[in-house]
Amino acid sequence: MDKFSFGLWTVGWQGRDPFGDATRPALDVPLAVRKLSELGAWGVTFHDDDLFPFGSDAAEVGKRVTAFRAALDETGMVVPMVTTNLFTHPVFKDGGFTSNDRSVRRFALRKVLRNLELAAELGAETIVMWGGREGSEVDAGKPMHAALDRYREAVDTVAQYSVDQGYGFRFALEPKPNEPRGDILLPTIGHALAFISTLEHHELVGVNPEVGHEQMAGLNFVHGIGQALWQKKLFHIDLNGQKGPRYDQDFVFGQGDLLSAFFLVDLLENGGYEGPRHFDYKPLRTEDLDGVWASAAANMRTYQLLRERAAAFRADPEVQEALKISGVYELAEPTLNEGESITDFLKGEDFDADVAAERGFGFVRLGQLATEHLLGAR
Amino acid sequence: MDKFSFGLWTVGWQGRDPFGDATRPALDVPLAVRKLSELGAWGVTFHDDDLFPFGSDAAEVGKRVTAFRAALDETGMVVPMVTTNLFTHPVFKDGGFTSNDRSVRRFALRKVLRNLELAAELGAETIVMWGGREGSEVDAGKPMHAALDRYREAVDTVAQYSVDQGYGFRFALEPKPNEPRGDILLPTIGHALAFISTLEHHELVGVNPEVGHEQMAGLNFVHGIGQALWQKKLFHIDLNGQKGPRYDQDFVFGQGDLLSAFFLVDLLENGGYEGPRHFDYKPLRTEDLDGVWASAAANMRTYQLLRERAAAFRADPEVQEALKISGVYELAEPTLNEGESITDFLKGEDFDADVAAERGFGFVRLGQLATEHLLGAR
Amino acid sequence: MDKFSFGLWTVGWQGRDPFGDATRPALDVPLAVRKLSELGAWGVTFHDDDLFPFGSDAAEVGKRVTAFRAALDETGMVVPMVTTNLFTHPVFKDGGFTSNDRSVRRFALRKVLRNLELAAELGAETIVMWGGREGSEVDAGKPMHAALDRYREAVDTVAQYSVDQGYGFRFALEPKPNEPRGDILLPTIGHALAFISTLEHHELVGVNPEVGHEQMAGLNFVHGIGQALWQKKLFHIDLNGQKGPRYDQDFVFGQGDLLSAFFLVDLLENGGYEGPRHFDYKPLRTEDLDGVWASAAANMRTYQLLRERAAAFRADPEVQEALKISGVYELAEPTLNEGESITDFLKGEDFDADVAAERGFGFVRLGQLATEHLLGAR
Amino acid sequence: MDKFSFGLWTVGWQGRDPFGDATRPALDVPLAVRKLSELGAWGVTFHDDDLFPFGSDAAEVGKRVTAFRAALDETGMVVPMVTTNLFTHPVFKDGGFTSNDRSVRRFALRKVLRNLELAAELGAETIVMWGGREGSEVDAGKPMHAALDRYREAVDTVAQYSVDQGYGFRFALEPKPNEPRGDILLPTIGHALAFISTLEHHELVGVNPEVGHEQMAGLNFVHGIGQALWQKKLFHIDLNGQKGPRYDQDFVFGQGDLLSAFFLVDLLENGGYEGPRHFDYKPLRTEDLDGVWASAAANMRTYQLLRERAAAFRADPEVQEALKISGVYELAEPTLNEGESITDFLKGEDFDADVAAERGFGFVRLGQLATEHLLGAR
Repeated sequence: MDKFSFGLWTVGWQGRDPFGDATRPALDVPLAVRKLSELGAWGVTFHDDDLFPFGSDAAEVGKRVTAFRAALDETGMVVPMVTTNLFTHPVFKDGGFTSNDRSVRRFALRKVLRNLELAAELGAETIVMWGGREGSEVDAGKPMHAALDRYREAVDTVAQYSVDQGYGFRFALEPKPNEPRGDILLPTIGHALAFISTLEHHELVGVNPEVGHEQMAGLNFVHGIGQALWQKKLFHIDLNGQKGPRYDQDFVFGQGDLLSAFFLVDLLENGGYEGPRHFDYKPLRTEDLDGVWASAAANMRTYQLLRERAAAFRADPEVQEALKISGVYELAEPTLNEGESITDFLKGEDFDADVAAERGFGFVRLGQLATEHLLGAR
Repeated sequence: MDKFSFGLWTVGWQGRDPFGDATRPALDVPLAVRKLSELGAWGVTFHDDDLFPFGSDAAEVGKRVTAFRAALDETGMVVPMVTTNLFTHPVFKDGGFTSNDRSVRRFALRKVLRNLELAAELGAETIVMWGGREGSEVDAGKPMHAALDRYREAVDTVAQYSVDQGYGFRFALEPKPNEPRGDILLPTIGHALAFISTLEHHELVGVNPEVGHEQMAGLNFVHGIGQALWQKKLFHIDLNGQKGPRYDQDFVFGQGDLLSAFFLVDLLENGGYEGPRHFDYKPLRTEDLDGVWASAAANMRTYQLLRERAAAFRADPEVQEALKISGVYELAEPTLNEGESITDFLKGEDFDADVAAERGFGFVRLGQLATEHLLGAR
Repeated sequence: MDKFSFGLWTVGWQGRDPFGDATRPALDVPLAVRKLSELGAWGVTFHDDDLFPFGSDAAEVGKRVTAFRAALDETGMVVPMVTTNLFTHPVFKDGGFTSNDRSVRRFALRKVLRNLELAAELGAETIVMWGGREGSEVDAGKPMHAALDRYREAVDTVAQYSVDQGYGFRFALEPKPNEPRGDILLPTIGHALAFISTLEHHELVGVNPEVGHEQMAGLNFVHGIGQALWQKKLFHIDLNGQKGPRYDQDFVFGQGDLLSAFFLVDLLENGGYEGPRHFDYKPLRTEDLDGVWASAAANMRTYQLLRERAAAFRADPEVQEALKISGVYELAEPTLNEGESITDFLKGEDFDADVAAERGFGFVRLGQLATEHLLGAR
Repeated sequence: MDKFSFGLWTVGWQGRDPFGDATRPALDVPLAVRKLSELGAWGVTFHDDDLFPFGSDAAEVGKRVTAFRAALDETGMVVPMVTTNLFTHPVFKDGGFTSNDRSVRRFALRKVLRNLELAAELGAETIVMWGGREGSEVDAGKPMHAALDRYREAVDTVAQYSVDQGYGFRFALEPKPNEPRGDILLPTIGHALAFISTLEHHELVGVNPEVGHEQMAGLNFVHGIGQALWQKKLFHIDLNGQKGPRYDQDFVFGQGDLLSAFFLVDLLENGGYEGPRHFDYKPLRTEDLDGVWASAAANMRTYQLLRERAAAFRADPEVQEALKISGVYELAEPTLNEGESITDFLKGEDFDADVAAERGFGFVRLGQLATEHLLGAR
């Protein structure tokens, strides 16, 4: 079965934006679970505050969780990932793990730690951490040295607690360049991977990249995912659509750079990623509830279509030949010969740069073959 | 003395751009050295091909290097950094270290290795590697897994050779998101730092970030430098100006986001960076030779002015007070108490989120104090 | 007296953003008027819904307007501009003037028309129209031909009504490329000016450009204002700060591209614009009420400082000389001689392109003089 | 027959870029004409300097034109458009029509005027003007007021000459936001349309928008073309591909935002545009001559596929129904009733905003239908 999962906050988004009020009523969580299941989803994910309001007492939490579990049991839906909301309540206005206010940092850290127990109970394997409020608008107000020290302290503390409790979680940091903060810490996949390499528990921590977040920085998402996979750090992924550097649009998957979405699916299907295909999108604010469900279905349908197209692309003998001409297989060969010493290598060999420069790599043909497969025209 | 350095290719840029021919004659290298020295520079840097044309024989190389050395000796200018051109000759059209053509990769690697000897002779301490042609326009043509394998192989081979030869170099990778390739590998400071963490010789390799390159991705350069310093990987820096996501403009330092330049200088002067202040810019194509020298001087003058402004900012008691109110010092305190166990910590403490949320962080005041210091108005 | 004005929605912004709840309580309107006046402002502006809640009955409206007027009378503050909110209520989710729902279009049009009377009573001269919801996320859903027909119909109807009633208003369209819609109609100053040229009442309609809105498209705001002034269509202006293509940041004026802000003030002061200097910004969400007032003051202070710097720049004999060398005055001379026929002109004249190409324009020196004046260093 | 045309400079691009030398030899013009014809093109276009080198004497020009004509005659290829190169020679470094150097402006204007005769002889109907060098890097060096005066003078002079000579040309201004200048005058379709409205010969002048140029500013190209068509000013079009705000990539048509390309073809085919489908792209620098021709063919093939997909989309009854539900036809109805006076209209009607706000517009479904048609999946 396809491991399609959705955040409760996606179909549950009421359409409140910086310039407008909600256009849809709040969605009942168990209903959302049932409906997503009907549409073919395999799992749901949530922030603590999606399931029960911030500040709920134990009774309220218990009631909500029970109803949620009932819907899960009924439908067979799983909870592969859980995350903690450190951004909606005004107390987090300067961040959670890296708020300049130490009491807020302590509160944020406890909020995450306490959410682990629920996540464990519900069988989640991955904990996502999106530090959307960890950032600044005024450079002097948030020195990176101290901020990254605090960030590291927090992530290592959470990972340690998971180890201590035997939860067995993997943690996935979600990068984003800006919005809601002027500039957010760990703005790209690269910065997050670099940060992770400094952690005490680096082996437990990977990334949860989101299509639109990288594209807000004009970066090639497929390249980013490729590097994350190469570093064995793609622990989770957020699929959606975005039209380049602008506000975070969270469109349906594919409703943005469709060519890139094609190559992404090709990479996910063939590059060793086995985790959920998690959609983190917002149904357009212009839609009613029917539109909400249509948008949820559209994410999965587009993924499936792209997977079919990618499979046909890979199976096409003309594509195989084009890959060969382009030197794609040649790139997999080490540059040095096996056992070749640098000294030997430096002695050189016959090489005429001007002649070598004449080689045509045929990337245009390869790109066009991809486009035509994408268009279902081959 | 200020450690201001310039690439020979900066003042030597003849103004050839994608839509126009050269507007200035080639610049004599020894003349450039003398003139930069007169203007107050401390060092010069170069690509091999800046000093002698691609394909020069040993005699030609010798002649050019001798003349260069004479100018260095005469002026006392140093060569703190050397880099290798793997982008101008058409043979590198699909990259150097990661070209899909293995023979090109071998040629590129030898070109870099051979340049090390010259760099050592001239006393350089840092080798910069800008992989401007390592990238792709068609995702299917450059699988990241193989490409990053080759990149790692190349960098580790070069570092190994430096160790073998006892050169003692440090290497600095220069990230850039795109141009001249559609998408370049290691597009940001973060991606480069992450890549470095996977190297065998990771301790010898750091980054050489360029103001404009990060800003082409809309990223906060001060944050990026902050992370590089935090990871102890700021081995070199390229200063210039850029107006956000667009073509690589290489303006004079400060001629872009001036507020960011102010905070950058503040960080460089106070954040533990002791390397060269290296200008990697292009004199506007509209300028004659007088304009070239005026632009070189402008880089240094602006840096000095920003340094003065930053020092006054830090010395201002009102700024100190604003930093305190904003919680900047508080951010340096660990979130957990010394020796506090997670279990104890989780027991919690009195915390009213709504009350805590009322705190005003005063970032506006801090930002305005910075602006007024920058404007020389305090 | 400086004609500094503020939207009530600026200091009144409660900090609700796409990812977080309000961080500040609602601000009492009369209090805001008094406080802005104390800080040195000359005027306030508002959307109907800023003054009284959407759907208020006549009694409520009357009460609110009376209290507002009292504060105006007490302080001498003026209301130079009024605008109508066609974006917050969910009914406008697909636009006001160009909603695909005709009943919504009719409601929106009446809302604007009815707001004119209040605007007239309060002495406003300018009516701003920001069509933030006029746009689309799916191209097929909003054909431009029909949408622009409806937009024109609406603007001409409103202008006609102003003429009919003898209100004497001028109307100012405010362009924005995106957010909250995926793409907004009339995305830049240029598109708005072009649209205006098609109106029946084109002489009554100009633009209200906002710094950040043009910079979200990576455009040069000074150039845009220059074209609007050249077309005699700069009827109003929104000053604030933005860091390039990303979400709409609405920072304090100058907290973004400060060099551009300098040249903007230079142009506004010397380019024939006599309207209000209107700040349309948001106090950072991290601030309490003290920070709100500090941010309001910061806008005005920065404008004044830039005005001083620009005046010193223009008065500097070295700048005058640099302008001359750069050919700035020469650009004001017609290209053809007075009375020169094209036929005569085509006969040509002595011109050696290679020699002419040697001229250095000295733009670098000019830019550096500006920077140093901006830094208060000359 | 499909009116597919190509600039000679497209297939003829040798791959020289800001960081690298040419990777391909110069292309013989008659050969290019024959080859493009074989591939199915209908026309070719050129800059004067593409046909004969800058500064050629009459004999050289005659020889080149004769050979070109022979190829046209032999193949039946037409020359629908001609343009003038005011950007490559260093004399144009500060612009042509708006250079600060008056002697350069006069030279530029004569170069354009003289090119009209050749254009007329070759049967061109449209003259494109891309003012790529009309712009600035330093705002103070290029006051918009004077620059736009000069721009207007030049365009009106050229148009007047066409009228005087009875050439019957239409002129098409090509907007671009930046590159090669820091900021270019008339940066978008909107700014160009606005400028045109001020011309004496405004009826003879329209726009030649390029896909990538608008997308470099993050703008919706379909919206821009929609406005140009609505203003009856789409005189010509440049088709290519671009990946958002970055350097000018000039990819093959479709190799960028493919969804937008789909809606663009849909609009061109159904929106009343009857001019050439002109490809202004660059074959990737990694390609040899085979790749050049493959890339030329790819442009046409993608256009044809998108046209088929768009036709199927429009013909699908489910799409028709979705358009109706979305209110697309309703948008074509005037907002006021026929003959309705504003006074009557203002009396109002029964309207409950909260109820009206419940309408779902179904844009998600419409977008998904488009995507599935694009993917050839319906």
